[in-house]
Amino acid sequence: MQAEIIAVGTEILLGQIDNTNASYVARGLAGLGINVFHQQVIGDNPERLDDAIALAEQRSDLVVVMGGLGPTRDDLTKQVVARHLGRKLVVDEQALNKIVTHYKTTGRSLGDNDRLQALYVDGGRSLPNENGMAVGDFIHQANWTDFLVLPGPPRELIDMFDRTVVPILRDTYQIEQRLKSRVLRYFGIGEADLARQLDDLIDNQTNPTLATYAKSGEVTLRLTANAKDDQVANALLDKMEKTVQDRIGQYFYGYGDDNDLATVVVNQLIAHHLSITAAESLTAGLFQSTIGSVPGVSTVFPGGFVTYAASAKHELIAVPQSVIDQFGVVSEQTAIWMAQQSKKLLHTDIAISFTGVAGPDELEGHPAGTVWIGLAYRDEPVVAHEYHFADDRQLNRWRSVLNGLDLVRRAINDQN
Amino acid sequence: MQAEIIAVGTEILLGQIDNTNASYVARGLAGLGINVFHQQVIGDNPERLDDAIALAEQRSDLVVVMGGLGPTRDDLTKQVVARHLGRKLVVDEQALNKIVTHYKTTGRSLGDNDRLQALYVDGGRSLPNENGMAVGDFIHQANWTDFLVLPGPPRELIDMFDRTVVPILRDTYQIEQRLKSRVLRYFGIGEADLARQLDDLIDNQTNPTLATYAKSGEVTLRLTANAKDDQVANALLDKMEKTVQDRIGQYFYGYGDDNDLATVVVNQLIAHHLSITAAESLTAGLFQSTIGSVPGVSTVFPGGFVTYAASAKHELIAVPQSVIDQFGVVSEQTAIWMAQQSKKLLHTDIAISFTGVAGPDELEGHPAGTVWIGLAYRDEPVVAHEYHFADDRQLNRWRSVLNGLDLVRRAINDQN
Repeated sequence: MQAEIIAVGTEILLGQIDNTNASYVARGLAGLGINVFHQQVIGDNPERLDDAIALAEQRSDLVVVMGGLGPTRDDLTKQVVARHLGRKLVVDEQALNKIVTHYKTTGRSLGDNDRLQALYVDGGRSLPNENGMAVGDFIHQANWTDFLVLPGPPRELIDMFDRTVVPILRDTYQIEQRLKSRVLRYFGIGEADLARQLDDLIDNQTNPTLATYAKSGEVTLRLTANAKDDQVANALLDKMEKTVQDRIGQYFYGYGDDNDLATVVVNQLIAHHLSITAAESLTAGLFQSTIGSVPGVSTVFPGGFVTYAASAKHELIAVPQSVIDQFGVVSEQTAIWMAQQSKKLLHTDIAISFTGVAGPDELEGHPAGTVWIGLAYRDEPVVAHEYHFADDRQLNRWRSVLNGLDLVRRAINDQN
Repeated sequence: MQAEIIAVGTEILLGQIDNTNASYVARGLAGLGINVFHQQVIGDNPERLDDAIALAEQRSDLVVVMGGLGPTRDDLTKQVVARHLGRKLVVDEQALNKIVTHYKTTGRSLGDNDRLQALYVDGGRSLPNENGMAVGDFIHQANWTDFLVLPGPPRELIDMFDRTVVPILRDTYQIEQRLKSRVLRYFGIGEADLARQLDDLIDNQTNPTLATYAKSGEVTLRLTANAKDDQVANALLDKMEKTVQDRIGQYFYGYGDDNDLATVVVNQLIAHHLSITAAESLTAGLFQSTIGSVPGVSTVFPGGFVTYAASAKHELIAVPQSVIDQFGVVSEQTAIWMAQQSKKLLHTDIAISFTGVAGPDELEGHPAGTVWIGLAYRDEPVVAHEYHFADDRQLNRWRSVLNGLDLVRRAINDQN
């Protein structure tokens, strides 16, 4: 079973809007175990749409055509599909009634084009549109390619797909098999390194499949199993997860698409009743603002300091001027003092400090990307770690925050 | 001149990420007057990519292939293009040096796959990647279709396209007619309101065209003129800008795609030698971190406070306990005290404070989205403004920061 997605619309072709419909439908089909091997985008042009359909039906079992069902003159998708299949268009009377009523209610006059939205291909199945006027269409052909025609506006497409299309496809193709994904999240390893460690698994992937994805310093690994029920899928996923974690488990920090290091750390702090503060120089509040984004953080985070200038390090958290003078602000000693002092001032269990060079310019002879992160954890000796990032100002600051979160996470794991 | 865009990547094909690269390149080509009639999406599969290329080169003068240049084993785009054209891949020595140096600097080990990122098609032109390691490639063929190969990560693609590809395409295809855009930025007016004020202009747009774009609380308006040289284009833009600003100029704060409220505010502070600090509760450092993202801010920003808990408001910046007890932390009085005290402690010209309810839960009987922002400006009376946002936690925090920046901007404009 192989599907192909054709998006119709000059505004997509010219890049005025992103083709989010294609992503949505592709994810939906993948969830049904239907492979998508090709996507096309075509403008509002009947000849090129006909060519695209002709190409798609040769290589795919199901062609999804999206967009061009509306009431304007360049909305011609159904007409092109009908002509291509040598069928006529027929009226969905219920949909037409809805259109007529809608125009009466809103006091606007009904044009001929508006009525076209109630048409569907003869022999097909009209798909009701809960969020708009244009009906969709599913055309099942015994020994030839099937066609699914969907409206372009995302609100209409998404609702129609979830509500009507998924049950029809399950029923038509007797789909029992389903895809189940598990997302594993890693920090401290690059995407290339991670892929290298899993080289053979990625090369020979069948079921589950493995896909890596890197974003702003984190890497995720998505395992996807194809199975007839959840139990079988979970067993496949468990086995693959074990193989993967034996190799790269030391970088693993959590599960799920809707997760991140800050969420994991804040939830660990809450679970262990550990309070935290921070003294931030180059990150200028980004660490605190990041943990501040997690609901519930107020029970473990009273507040902290942004000590951007050397004077603020001295005045706000009493880092001795002699330490700054002797070692500089970008130093192990300053990072240690910053963590130690802020912990003392806010009576917390943990304090973290950031001092370094965000860039673009160097500071005290240290190149942009040099960062010291200090960590004070309960009564343990205060430590500081040195990092060398080589990115732009924003990424250097963001990587500092992520590494800070990871230090806290590891400290909690080690001590609990 | 007709172009076609092929995006390569299983994650796009399966809908795990949106194909924003296609939109970006399509808009860029449109700006050069190059028509895009087809887009395709293909997974990381060499055979299907080869088929897609074969189809595209038959019907297009320029084929843009995006993605699959990275260091993992499924990144095969350049190999497929080279084989399709019967050419070999050669090394861009400068790019290879950059890769080797990067790995040395960051202390990681260099694999064979990493080196592949410095390859380009023999006879083509290697395109430097300022934001990554993989070079792009432009292959101009005298009597046959041209190929442009671009990296998949949007940061890399966008920079390479703007910096290198546009000049090369202009030069290669002798493009004189050009689109010139001017971006006007507004804060304090919604996109729908802005569009309503410019209704007739948007309906009758020809040259310049107008497009509105809303993002995270700001609205931008892009005017685009089509003219044979900059002088004519500028005259068209000047005239339209005047018409627009007569209607909505009171919300205008700056020009340019690469601009934002924080940049405008920090540059105003620097220009007027005004120093600033902040005391943040619900925003938890987001205001300070946002101004901290602007290079040069260190001359006007010594640091500040994150006073998340009531105790921190009292202990760190000495907001009297009686004020907190009598009025609550979400109050005009607390906001005023927070601004006043932090200004005094850091001896700055300006201080801003944020206290309120980010959500999802209410606080002290105030619904999520209730925010007080205090402003202390030199010796002016300290004031506080009340806001009611109705968004989720992150957006409520972000809108607070934007409104804080706007308060500072307006205060500087009023006083200077």
